[in-house]
Amino acid sequence: MTDWFETHDGLWAKAWSILGRGVADARHPARRPTLATVSPTGWPEARTVVLRGADAKAQLVTLHTDLYSDKIKSLDANPRAALHIWVPQQNLQIRLQGEVTVASGAKVRPFWDNIPDHARQSYGVIPPPGTPIANALDYVKDPDPATFAVLTCTLTHIDLVHLGDDHRRVSYSRGGDWQGQWLSP
Amino acid sequence: MTDWFETHDGLWAKAWSILGRGVADARHPARRPTLATVSPTGWPEARTVVLRGADAKAQLVTLHTDLYSDKIKSLDANPRAALHIWVPQQNLQIRLQGEVTVASGAKVRPFWDNIPDHARQSYGVIPPPGTPIANALDYVKDPDPATFAVLTCTLTHIDLVHLGDDHRRVSYSRGGDWQGQWLSP
Repeated sequence: MTDWFETHDGLWAKAWSILGRGVADARHPARRPTLATVSPTGWPEARTVVLRGADAKAQLVTLHTDLYSDKIKSLDANPRAALHIWVPQQNLQIRLQGEVTVASGAKVRPFWDNIPDHARQSYGVIPPPGTPIANALDYVKDPDPATFAVLTCTLTHIDLVHLGDDHRRVSYSRGGDWQGQWLSP
Repeated sequence: MTDWFETHDGLWAKAWSILGRGVADARHPARRPTLATVSPTGWPEARTVVLRGADAKAQLVTLHTDLYSDKIKSLDANPRAALHIWVPQQNLQIRLQGEVTVASGAKVRPFWDNIPDHARQSYGVIPPPGTPIANALDYVKDPDPATFAVLTCTLTHIDLVHLGDDHRRVSYSRGGDWQGQWLSP
């Protein structure tokens, strides 16, 4: 009997299963990856995002964000992104890299229409995110489809590290047709 | 009665208290921040690291790593780093940015001498981390003080987001003498 973490295919299937759980289950650790980008001045940046889609066949993931957030300015300058998830239950670190396209306006209206009212509160704030304000609560939530953006990250690399009794590390790339390659951990 | 998340000073003190807990308590979420760097080819990268020190007075944090890991190559090319921690108990996102210096060899020997045997297993593997190997377990752990590195991240920016009934976001910078500035969340 082979455990899932002993083969390229087993690790691949487990990682995509976990990403799917993150999309479906608001309390799963894969729900809130850390998104790393590079700022226009060359600084790395990292923040929590909410995973909204994971397509194992096309090897892409989707996120929703405010069109006026700093991450959009960074992605406009450099579309390359990394996503990081640590899954304690499986002792698995999931690292994704890919190129992000930003969609907004009419194209993403069908997504907006599916978002419950309370969740729309995350998109649209006056003044825009990151604007200095005199007092902590000097802002107004203003849910607005014009500020809603869908980020599609077309993956180029996936790196998985399983920290079991033994450590196993495998990497996959689009350029390598997603064939797994073991790496020294 | 003012809650800690209502003032610049309260948020600052809470963040450093949490970082201190991360250093002291292996099970605290601040123990394992996500470290984001920029690769020599300009890709953002993110991985779990272990927080080893947090100095509120000097505004710096320290990490330990393998001198031959990819993050060292990235930091040699671009010393700027971001650290990200999500603390569920406090609904607090801690984002740090700073410049990293890498120390190894005789200078860090006193740190090495204090690391318990089982923890030394994290430093030194043959072949070096990231080397392609034919089978998952084609490597040997070889704890070696020559592969042990201490990363000191001298912070330049701290950004905190508290997701309570209201959302509050504050940023501090070394250039601004760490005076807090509220930002629209």
